[in-house]
Amino acid sequence: MERTYAGDIKASSGYTLLVRGWVHKTHDLGSITFVQLRDRTGIIQLVIDKKMEERLRLEACIEAVGEKVQNDKAPMGVELLVKEIRVIGKTYYDTLPFEINTRTIAASLEKQLDYRSISLRVQKVRSVFKVQEEIVEAFRNYLKERGFSEIHTPKIIASSTEGGSEMFTVDYFGRRAFLAQSPQFYKQMMVGAGFERVFEIGAAYRAELHNTWRHLNEYISLDVEMGFIKDENDLMDLEEGFIRYLFNHLKQYCPNELEMHKIELDDKIAIPRIPLGEVQSILLEKYGKKSPAGNIDAEGEIMLSEYIKENYGSDFVFLTRYPAAKRPMYAMPDEEEPELTKSFDLIYKGLEITTGGQRIHDYEMLKDNMEKFGLVPDNFKFYLDSFMYGMPPHGGFAIGLERLTMKLLDLNNIREAALLPRDMKRLEP
Amino acid sequence: MERTYAGDIKASSGYTLLVRGWVHKTHDLGSITFVQLRDRTGIIQLVIDKKMEERLRLEACIEAVGEKVQNDKAPMGVELLVKEIRVIGKTYYDTLPFEINTRTIAASLEKQLDYRSISLRVQKVRSVFKVQEEIVEAFRNYLKERGFSEIHTPKIIASSTEGGSEMFTVDYFGRRAFLAQSPQFYKQMMVGAGFERVFEIGAAYRAELHNTWRHLNEYISLDVEMGFIKDENDLMDLEEGFIRYLFNHLKQYCPNELEMHKIELDDKIAIPRIPLGEVQSILLEKYGKKSPAGNIDAEGEIMLSEYIKENYGSDFVFLTRYPAAKRPMYAMPDEEEPELTKSFDLIYKGLEITTGGQRIHDYEMLKDNMEKFGLVPDNFKFYLDSFMYGMPPHGGFAIGLERLTMKLLDLNNIREAALLPRDMKRLEP
Repeated sequence: MERTYAGDIKASSGYTLLVRGWVHKTHDLGSITFVQLRDRTGIIQLVIDKKMEERLRLEACIEAVGEKVQNDKAPMGVELLVKEIRVIGKTYYDTLPFEINTRTIAASLEKQLDYRSISLRVQKVRSVFKVQEEIVEAFRNYLKERGFSEIHTPKIIASSTEGGSEMFTVDYFGRRAFLAQSPQFYKQMMVGAGFERVFEIGAAYRAELHNTWRHLNEYISLDVEMGFIKDENDLMDLEEGFIRYLFNHLKQYCPNELEMHKIELDDKIAIPRIPLGEVQSILLEKYGKKSPAGNIDAEGEIMLSEYIKENYGSDFVFLTRYPAAKRPMYAMPDEEEPELTKSFDLIYKGLEITTGGQRIHDYEMLKDNMEKFGLVPDNFKFYLDSFMYGMPPHGGFAIGLERLTMKLLDLNNIREAALLPRDMKRLEP
Repeated sequence: MERTYAGDIKASSGYTLLVRGWVHKTHDLGSITFVQLRDRTGIIQLVIDKKMEERLRLEACIEAVGEKVQNDKAPMGVELLVKEIRVIGKTYYDTLPFEINTRTIAASLEKQLDYRSISLRVQKVRSVFKVQEEIVEAFRNYLKERGFSEIHTPKIIASSTEGGSEMFTVDYFGRRAFLAQSPQFYKQMMVGAGFERVFEIGAAYRAELHNTWRHLNEYISLDVEMGFIKDENDLMDLEEGFIRYLFNHLKQYCPNELEMHKIELDDKIAIPRIPLGEVQSILLEKYGKKSPAGNIDAEGEIMLSEYIKENYGSDFVFLTRYPAAKRPMYAMPDEEEPELTKSFDLIYKGLEITTGGQRIHDYEMLKDNMEKFGLVPDNFKFYLDSFMYGMPPHGGFAIGLERLTMKLLDLNNIREAALLPRDMKRLEP
């Protein structure tokens, strides 16, 4: 007999059905026991005659055959009168680490992460990753429809991309190698290699020495690089279009998950683009907030988002024209004010989720800029050399997947948006 | 003016068109010059009046506006009479490292890899990655249609999954950590966490000390894990179905790329499943080939594929029932012959591209097996503990993406199927 999923039982034309799943809850009524069986699609109520009952512990995996009957009081409006039942995955615990069949989990986030394969059994916890999966799907579809190619670039690299601090080191057959902070150099090279438009969904590594609600040491980066652009506005147009596409996609594919998290996504996306200098003045004037040179800090990001929400009705804002001194050596300077760059950040609900910009595509200019930054061009030889053979004007951006997920669902901690987070203290599970 | 791609010019209704791309070839006819402009979609011929010609070096990035005229001798049947032309990406080389506008590349594979952003400009070289992208797309679509969730699991891990040799070590804030050889433990845990069916497309790392045509030290693994299976045949059914789906997908989305590589894909896929013991006997009887205990070697894989092609008309063969002693501690033993396992390999055109099988899902059995293998269960605590809370019968497999790509396109070396390969000697570019 074919298995029927809990979510399909009501609509199924079958009478005798086979179900499989986990024992979510049991309720003993003397001669019969109600068992709620949970599978990846939902929960179905089983009615089990006392005589046939094996001892059913919570979370055991079972398989049951039963006859479908209407019961308006059952969670799905139907239940199964069980004829056969069998435990197919035994339990060995003394007590569960925390209850998972209640409305909310009482356990701390750290404990939930320690027992990740238990906490994820809670529908609302797992729903975060349904939304995350659809973010990735939307990102991929949006870019493929626009002629972008998906690439995979290596994460073990010989030299650092942007200065060298905060990188994890790897012993590579006796050589010192690094884990890539981003596919920056490679995605640019692939634009030049003739792909013109590329994206990558892959791991990025930051050996940052802080443990906060918004940092992970290993995360998924949604990277984009696009050739033959006019300027950085092409990139902001592309990203703004993606956000619009994403919100429509999520409304279509995750209505239940959004409802579970009480999220209503905007229908209209229009993201203001404001030069950093102007933003710093706004923060100072409206909030008496001083910003660090050439940037705004975490508190400033939150204040700015309040201001933008009030004045523009947007959860998003692009900060543009960052000073060259605060951006990497490959950032394209502005023609008129060369101490500024054609770069931007995207802030979403008080958190930076993207850094992007136009890159320098001229070999001499890039080499000069490396030297201006105190870098030795020979250390970037394979990257720099690829600019000798005709590189188009280009640029790109990267979105932190977990940050976007967290902010979209109003989660409090980025670890909730990582299946198995890595931070300074956590390497397991 | 909007840019028109080379591949769209013939069908375009426009008369005056803007194109961008690289200078592929030039042909000087005295008063005019023919320039072949290459972009990611193809090549278009430009006709340039001598008077307006900037010095156009091969591979420079240019932008041109021209009037479309019929010319049956031009590569696309049309050409553009150029009115304006501008170099937008200068060249700085003395000579190109190798010619790329000829029918074949004369450079060695190593040199092509050294100059990857040049060699990929050759259509046939880049076509490998179009096929690879569509393999990934087919894999994802096939599994999503069957209720699988895409997951991302960390690659920095605290302990080895399968014994510990051949792993790269990472300095993780002063702790010794490793790069994951596979997402094996995590994908199993996610099945148990309620996803039931998961897949991952991610990097895998092997610090293997051999440099051969079929090994990479960092590669992309297409990983699958499926809960509530009956036995390993469910997994082989799933993989066989994928190969069928893949071949149809590639015929639809990559006809030109397949033709470029002279590949005709089978219309019918029926993959024989033969126990390893039987295969060893066949090799001995037909080829006088002795096999190592509990496996066949690389030469045996090639002989076997010949035999299967002759006798079954298939490029693929599943080898089943590997001995427990040669499989990992989590491999499910056969009920009747417990010295054998419910595991399999898939061989394609003489090369192993998949290892898979049913896993042990019972906590006590897994713990006993760890001890039988001389492993300390406490070293696998987070993995083993997750089996205490009801784990369904499950199993899965992993396909090496570069190996599948290589064999599908009859490439000679796996490095041709990696954008930026990593091997014992190569960490750059």
